Amino acid sequence: MTHQIRVGLFGTGRIGQVHAMSLATLDEATLSWVCDPFIEGAKQTAAEFGGRVTDDPDEVFASGEIDAVIVASPTATHLDLVAKAIEADVPVLCEKPIDLEISRVNAFREIAALSDVPVALGFNKRFDRHFVELKRRVAAEEIGVLEQLLITSRDPGEPPAAYLPQSGGIFRDMTIHDLDMARYFIPNIVEVSAQGANVFSDAIRHAGDFDSTVVTLRGSNDELVTIINSRHSAYGYDQRIEAFGSKGLLQVGNKNDNLVRHWGPRSVESIGPYQDFFLERYAEAYRLEVAEFLRAVRGLPSRSPGFEDGRAALILADAAEKSARTGTAVEVDLS
Amino acid sequence: MTHQIRVGLFGTGRIGQVHAMSLATLDEATLSWVCDPFIEGAKQTAAEFGGRVTDDPDEVFASGEIDAVIVASPTATHLDLVAKAIEADVPVLCEKPIDLEISRVNAFREIAALSDVPVALGFNKRFDRHFVELKRRVAAEEIGVLEQLLITSRDPGEPPAAYLPQSGGIFRDMTIHDLDMARYFIPNIVEVSAQGANVFSDAIRHAGDFDSTVVTLRGSNDELVTIINSRHSAYGYDQRIEAFGSKGLLQVGNKNDNLVRHWGPRSVESIGPYQDFFLERYAEAYRLEVAEFLRAVRGLPSRSPGFEDGRAALILADAAEKSARTGTAVEVDLS
Amino acid sequence: MTHQIRVGLFGTGRIGQVHAMSLATLDEATLSWVCDPFIEGAKQTAAEFGGRVTDDPDEVFASGEIDAVIVASPTATHLDLVAKAIEADVPVLCEKPIDLEISRVNAFREIAALSDVPVALGFNKRFDRHFVELKRRVAAEEIGVLEQLLITSRDPGEPPAAYLPQSGGIFRDMTIHDLDMARYFIPNIVEVSAQGANVFSDAIRHAGDFDSTVVTLRGSNDELVTIINSRHSAYGYDQRIEAFGSKGLLQVGNKNDNLVRHWGPRSVESIGPYQDFFLERYAEAYRLEVAEFLRAVRGLPSRSPGFEDGRAALILADAAEKSARTGTAVEVDLS
Amino acid sequence: MTHQIRVGLFGTGRIGQVHAMSLATLDEATLSWVCDPFIEGAKQTAAEFGGRVTDDPDEVFASGEIDAVIVASPTATHLDLVAKAIEADVPVLCEKPIDLEISRVNAFREIAALSDVPVALGFNKRFDRHFVELKRRVAAEEIGVLEQLLITSRDPGEPPAAYLPQSGGIFRDMTIHDLDMARYFIPNIVEVSAQGANVFSDAIRHAGDFDSTVVTLRGSNDELVTIINSRHSAYGYDQRIEAFGSKGLLQVGNKNDNLVRHWGPRSVESIGPYQDFFLERYAEAYRLEVAEFLRAVRGLPSRSPGFEDGRAALILADAAEKSARTGTAVEVDLS
Repeated sequence: MTHQIRVGLFGTGRIGQVHAMSLATLDEATLSWVCDPFIEGAKQTAAEFGGRVTDDPDEVFASGEIDAVIVASPTATHLDLVAKAIEADVPVLCEKPIDLEISRVNAFREIAALSDVPVALGFNKRFDRHFVELKRRVAAEEIGVLEQLLITSRDPGEPPAAYLPQSGGIFRDMTIHDLDMARYFIPNIVEVSAQGANVFSDAIRHAGDFDSTVVTLRGSNDELVTIINSRHSAYGYDQRIEAFGSKGLLQVGNKNDNLVRHWGPRSVESIGPYQDFFLERYAEAYRLEVAEFLRAVRGLPSRSPGFEDGRAALILADAAEKSARTGTAVEVDLS
Repeated sequence: MTHQIRVGLFGTGRIGQVHAMSLATLDEATLSWVCDPFIEGAKQTAAEFGGRVTDDPDEVFASGEIDAVIVASPTATHLDLVAKAIEADVPVLCEKPIDLEISRVNAFREIAALSDVPVALGFNKRFDRHFVELKRRVAAEEIGVLEQLLITSRDPGEPPAAYLPQSGGIFRDMTIHDLDMARYFIPNIVEVSAQGANVFSDAIRHAGDFDSTVVTLRGSNDELVTIINSRHSAYGYDQRIEAFGSKGLLQVGNKNDNLVRHWGPRSVESIGPYQDFFLERYAEAYRLEVAEFLRAVRGLPSRSPGFEDGRAALILADAAEKSARTGTAVEVDLS
Repeated sequence: MTHQIRVGLFGTGRIGQVHAMSLATLDEATLSWVCDPFIEGAKQTAAEFGGRVTDDPDEVFASGEIDAVIVASPTATHLDLVAKAIEADVPVLCEKPIDLEISRVNAFREIAALSDVPVALGFNKRFDRHFVELKRRVAAEEIGVLEQLLITSRDPGEPPAAYLPQSGGIFRDMTIHDLDMARYFIPNIVEVSAQGANVFSDAIRHAGDFDSTVVTLRGSNDELVTIINSRHSAYGYDQRIEAFGSKGLLQVGNKNDNLVRHWGPRSVESIGPYQDFFLERYAEAYRLEVAEFLRAVRGLPSRSPGFEDGRAALILADAAEKSARTGTAVEVDLS
Repeated sequence: MTHQIRVGLFGTGRIGQVHAMSLATLDEATLSWVCDPFIEGAKQTAAEFGGRVTDDPDEVFASGEIDAVIVASPTATHLDLVAKAIEADVPVLCEKPIDLEISRVNAFREIAALSDVPVALGFNKRFDRHFVELKRRVAAEEIGVLEQLLITSRDPGEPPAAYLPQSGGIFRDMTIHDLDMARYFIPNIVEVSAQGANVFSDAIRHAGDFDSTVVTLRGSNDELVTIINSRHSAYGYDQRIEAFGSKGLLQVGNKNDNLVRHWGPRSVESIGPYQDFFLERYAEAYRLEVAEFLRAVRGLPSRSPGFEDGRAALILADAAEKSARTGTAVEVDLS
């Protein structure tokens, strides 16, 4: 492939915009199609980043003018669009979650396995250079054998009430990122325990969802992973990982772009608050995620997570939901 | 009570020594009796800190020369000695756990409740001034409503293999401190989930115990508490608490008495390692624990944890053990 | 000015490249001329960033195709190019130092004062957002009255030996940035004391220059400013400011883009080293410096430092040199 | 000397009390005499810590009941009491400064040199374990060759106005500690430059003294030492040292006994302020200072600073005063 990779984009919401922007910064690719049933959204994105506009996915695939597609449309459409991409022999980067129904995912699994069309999943945290660095050092056995992992993930504020019903619940919507992060370090998870709580949001309670959760995973070597989530955080986006091993501890702390610290009569060493949410915190990661997908498109070795990672994360999220509802640890088999 | 409080000490092991030393620093009290079936231990302690020596607890109570007793003997003897103290109308400070059998504790409960003899439990962490400060600030609603609590507790190294069978298991021996700390912030716990793992110690595995655990508690207001334990830590004693509330976060970090930091080509801001274990980390707390007990002895208001706290911690530890063994969340009723 | 601002660039060394890159990121400007007596350098820069090529400055000014110029050529040419720009009525951004001879600067002063052509000086640190934030908070009297200032500035490694003779010495070449930073906080400096030392570099010693210096300035309100410089630093680029006031302390620490910290048996809280030098540390500042200059070009209010700031910095650098050579504090009059 | 060392104490002000308390914690010594012209002070100290009482130094020396003396009386009496101690063949620990008049010190120098009676000087910072650790690591060449030293020392609040006239000025009263610290790392200082300023205190200005100072010392190997002092600090006692070497940087930061950090919407990582002044910050150091002196009393090798260190510190303080008054660097010869 010597020319620029022509990419079709499905979905022009917040995350679709992010991917369009990433493409704009990458010389090797160009946005060739923008598809959204909300055609105004598609037009606006195309006006800013280029590409032809349609509300019909089939037009995109039929055009012959695409080398790859990015699926950032609502979750319910993910699997169908991935299927179309595989059928059309077009590599696809699909946002998480791959679907909200594991039965549908499993039904599709064989097709995905038999195909050699690259399918990448949008787990952006895998591309954050701090987490990548953490994994490199863990893999280099800097802390010996990995024994425990603690992932803290708190959003600045709860999502709009209107979004909650379609979110699939906190485990499939928010925790799923951390479940995939757990697998980034410990791929083979065998057991899931979870607790959900309602401590602050009436809207979330009314939606039948939890606003705060704790999930504990067990790896096949008896590693214990703890994931702590909250749908709000008064001090900003809280994204930390702590890896405890036989020979030491490694932590990824929160990012703070402010370097000014204050010393006064009532407190010292105070630093300005975290100001970003995921679009800022993971801006570079989103770009690297697309770049890594483009490697796969060009037939190069790529470390993008794939269909099986998307399926595994959903299985873990389902198990967490079940455990939180029943009070029982749930055994899982990701193989 | 105008004279010095005469204190009888049962048990002259490591923790008995600590209490003897604390008494030596407190002007208001004096060590009057030292009792240990291992009479050489009693003699040695008395030689250093004063007091008459015996291997017979009854001799202590019969002497009439005690105003209070401290029970630091093996766990199996705790309840009997507390019973003798109550019978003799002598205030007692008893080490944790109060017993390993909740049935025995429950059988004794009414006696304790009917008596007005002060019974204090040796949960030393409640007297650490950093945790006390944390509680004060949480109670002052500095972080609004307390929603989540994270307690990390890792010992520098595993206990001697010979100690394991009598320890009652990690939950009753080690986690019990953190279970009480959870109740220090959230007294009314209603549910316990736990996972145990064997990742590094053959000795612990052979003893049928876990070397690493995660416990999740639920408070009656749906607060979630996570306790992470390990029986070893390559970087020293790890004792942290993180309190997450609707308006902010408060953390108690690890204590590091070294102020020298290093900047070099390979790493910056490096500081010397934690060098202490609980005797050093909680030296001041142990002293304050005894001082607070002495207030109760003098009939003053005292914030020492009592029999019911000892019982609650054991119930939680039992529930954690059961949950870890069965994979099911265990409801508890501490009332 | 509705069209893009056409900028002529003099000098295509390291810093010329930086400015060309900044222009490329700013939509409102375009590189129209690239001038360097080393014509291959000019060609290469023009190939990457656009613009016509020449080795003759007069051709640039005569072309009528420039709205502004940036002077990043060797120091000896600065003043002449600024003079040509003023004569041609073209706004100019000139790199520091404005010249190495204060007599020449003074001779030119009246011309600069009488002209209303914007002359901006390339003191990039004034555009670093952390120092800007520090100044904002000092100006807001968050620490009351500013009493002391400490500026630490250490380069990763000494400059090439060949550069030393033309550098003007450490005070005019390196300290000058910090002298201007001092004036960013305390414009009116009245006294300069300095010490120079030779502790590590034979090359610098042979060039008759110092490798390590301490400068103390006195403001007109008796504020004391200390500047600590070294031409090398084993742990990377060290750029800190500490502002001490009647009500508190504010510090700007070093930037560290690595978030992974390590805890081990020999040290804890270790974080990866500083990896950048000024091109990375001040990348954003260089861009903002050019953007701010372009405001002046468009006739908008601009906070760019000007000719008088360049003169003041040179006077202070000269005074530092004199003080270091004579051991006597030197009074200065910047008015 | 098999019995307890009998120590006579001259002066029962704040620092005299500290030494009395240190003696009380050291088994090997006992307070045998307390001498103060303000006899009530002597009586009170003796009541608390033991010893006979007098207002006449000669009575102490004549009693034959002393093995050592500690001089914590007003500065003007130091040299006479040291002289009496040497005459009486009694080891003496003398508070800083040894005197305010270098001529008197020099006149006494030969007597001190000829005598083999141990004379220790009260430079308490040399006994702070963090500074000791810093020196150990510098001496071990962990940062290669020591090139620059930065000592920051700020008192929480200015001294009482009444004390100022007898203080000898900030250099002899306060900076002298840091001048000695400089010599702890770099014994051979050859040049002193200093600036004094009056930025906040009318009382200090009226006393003809400075409230803020910067001193730069040059070591015989061209090391540069910077000492920054202020007579007040809104955020508490500020005591830091930064040692810069060819291979890295070592810092001793401020001590903060509070472990609770706060994260909120306006700032993060805030920790409680420094609460102590020198009596708290250097409590352990004062005790170790006396303990080290007692080693000398018993004829053991001792690392206590001596008469020559006291003289050197005064020479440096005098030079700083002279430099600050004249604006000229002052060469010194400490040999």
